[in-house]
Amino acid sequence: MLRVSERATVFPDSPIRKLVPYADQARALGRTVYPLNIGQPDIPTPRPFLDALKAYDRQVIAYGKSEGEQPYREALAKYYAGCDIEVSANDIVVTQGGSEAILFAFQVATEPGDEVLVFEPFYTNYNAFALMCDISLRPVRTLASTGFHLPPDEAIRAAIGPRTKAILVCTPNNPTGTVFTEDEMRRLGAIAKDLGLFLISDEVYREFCYEGVHTSVMHLKGLEDNAILVDSVSKRYSACGARIGCLVTRNRDARAAAVRLAMSRLCPASVEQEACLAMAQLGMDFFAPLRDEYRRRRDATYEGLMRIPGVTCLEPKGAFYIMAELPVEDCESFAKWLLTDYHHDNSTVMVAPGPGFYARGKYEEKGQGLNQVRLAYVLETPKLKAAMDILGRAVDAYMAANPS
Amino acid sequence: MLRVSERATVFPDSPIRKLVPYADQARALGRTVYPLNIGQPDIPTPRPFLDALKAYDRQVIAYGKSEGEQPYREALAKYYAGCDIEVSANDIVVTQGGSEAILFAFQVATEPGDEVLVFEPFYTNYNAFALMCDISLRPVRTLASTGFHLPPDEAIRAAIGPRTKAILVCTPNNPTGTVFTEDEMRRLGAIAKDLGLFLISDEVYREFCYEGVHTSVMHLKGLEDNAILVDSVSKRYSACGARIGCLVTRNRDARAAAVRLAMSRLCPASVEQEACLAMAQLGMDFFAPLRDEYRRRRDATYEGLMRIPGVTCLEPKGAFYIMAELPVEDCESFAKWLLTDYHHDNSTVMVAPGPGFYARGKYEEKGQGLNQVRLAYVLETPKLKAAMDILGRAVDAYMAANPS
Repeated sequence: MLRVSERATVFPDSPIRKLVPYADQARALGRTVYPLNIGQPDIPTPRPFLDALKAYDRQVIAYGKSEGEQPYREALAKYYAGCDIEVSANDIVVTQGGSEAILFAFQVATEPGDEVLVFEPFYTNYNAFALMCDISLRPVRTLASTGFHLPPDEAIRAAIGPRTKAILVCTPNNPTGTVFTEDEMRRLGAIAKDLGLFLISDEVYREFCYEGVHTSVMHLKGLEDNAILVDSVSKRYSACGARIGCLVTRNRDARAAAVRLAMSRLCPASVEQEACLAMAQLGMDFFAPLRDEYRRRRDATYEGLMRIPGVTCLEPKGAFYIMAELPVEDCESFAKWLLTDYHHDNSTVMVAPGPGFYARGKYEEKGQGLNQVRLAYVLETPKLKAAMDILGRAVDAYMAANPS
Repeated sequence: MLRVSERATVFPDSPIRKLVPYADQARALGRTVYPLNIGQPDIPTPRPFLDALKAYDRQVIAYGKSEGEQPYREALAKYYAGCDIEVSANDIVVTQGGSEAILFAFQVATEPGDEVLVFEPFYTNYNAFALMCDISLRPVRTLASTGFHLPPDEAIRAAIGPRTKAILVCTPNNPTGTVFTEDEMRRLGAIAKDLGLFLISDEVYREFCYEGVHTSVMHLKGLEDNAILVDSVSKRYSACGARIGCLVTRNRDARAAAVRLAMSRLCPASVEQEACLAMAQLGMDFFAPLRDEYRRRRDATYEGLMRIPGVTCLEPKGAFYIMAELPVEDCESFAKWLLTDYHHDNSTVMVAPGPGFYARGKYEEKGQGLNQVRLAYVLETPKLKAAMDILGRAVDAYMAANPS
């Protein structure tokens, strides 16, 4: 067979999706599988989205503006004002999901061969976007024992070399659930400013902070040139399939470059963008009950986890995720075993193994995250309680069957 | 200001979109501007698309499958069977427009620094996708005087070096309207097979062949390993804003690699994909009246052009475009002048200047296409006749004002 490129061959399998065939097999055997592997909210998408689809009456589904439609960008600017982020419609480029916003941010900040500093563990697809842009991710490790908060400045500065062009942070964090403090964000801002780096901030879980406040990269004073915000409606409005995100920056050159990149793929999806315009007008009150619901889910998951002997994790303050260290040597095998070999009362649990959330390529260290799993608490609380009960029993059974 | 990357800075402005501000100014002066610059069909999107939006009743707009939904891929396979292309749902990856399909094809075929051979003039955004993938496009020139058909094999083989990994062809062609013959497609297939290259074929205008038959890369025997088809609903169903395309290949490794790339951006837009499923079932009869309409438009445009002294172009057989040589030295200036300085009875014409359809970067030759413009005949026939009349008068006036 004609050989495909090395870069497409080493492209990482998604740790979130690669166990799906085993889950399908378990379900085919009549088992209940609690899907804690993927951050797919079960919350209904707000009615204005569906109403906008029903009311859609354009005769021609035509190309839209590459940077997104003016009314939608204005609605986004208003939404951001509600988050104490002062930006104008002209600072925003609408993208095909947060995914494309990250891709554009990487392309704007780096040349081929450059590096972006990122805190490990991190959202698995950052590895994929880095490969697509021919850059390396330079990881700085954060630890379960400290709630995955930042290491001291020295550790961060030590990882920055001449080819480093940006720092990428995600807050609230996927996969750890960590909300970086105002002090931590300021520290990153100071380093970025001092060393002339872009500070790219992935804030798609902004609304899901259960304690304290969220600090956006756009809140940092004096960082107008360095700050690039990456965002999406996927989690905010439970509209993952809409593939509507945005890139926001006050740096005129960076915004102009992002628009040029956007022109190459013509425009974001027209219909879904118009439906998102309807949702953007929902206002901040919409999120309060959602946040309460996810806080209950977080509590149930975390409390359940804490009942399992040997688990290490601090209570995460945001997003939908808990990254936990289990008393299991190899969570890749364990996660597969949960689907192929284990059930309790005909039920089992699907989790995302830790290693997929660590750097690939140039700075890869084999074996990282092997004793970790990511749990997405996107099910109703009773189901999460049941899932944690099963996980505890499964850990016992697995350790009995695989003594170290 | 913090500097953006060189690669994002050299990103080409779209020749199709960059004159928009001047057109807006002309319209603000009360002028009628005939937009022949962009291939945005005025044909209404078929009813099943809009009906599907109204009937959409999912509660959660959830992530879909990265490779596209099974029912839609099956509907596409049936559509292809109607084009005498035998492929299965498993040969197809649904993409975010044809744009992403080209990007995936480049990534699957090449490493950074590799080359793709492409026939010049070509669709302007190929330059952008090449930049994004850190590869070079190696152009092989085709000429207005020969209807932009292929040069002899020797000229093609001479442009293939050790870093060449693929040949990219577009048929029916954007920007030239040329439909490559079965013999031409077979010649490309033989070269690809002989030298172990992918043959990537962009066939988004398949339905718009006004004489003769369309030869798809998927029709070529023995080329299963080499052939990658790039496609889109944009032109076929006048649904440019839907951003739904696909990549089709029988090469298992290439398909698997494209699915891995697709996983990184999670899924194509869910709602628009479901609306496209409804359209995919329209059948081949749908296209006959459309083709007749565009043939009339082609005829009106070509006949009008032929009345302008000094114009060189052969009658194009497909797509929505005519690439014509005008008796004007610099069509960049002429295209701008049409909008800023010229009108006839308060009307003028917007065209896409030729140079944007030639290679940028490593193999760039300055001044190529300067005496050419691309005309998109996507307006009703009377408007096209009026536009050609104006263009002829404008050429006269411009040459009188700018004697060479």
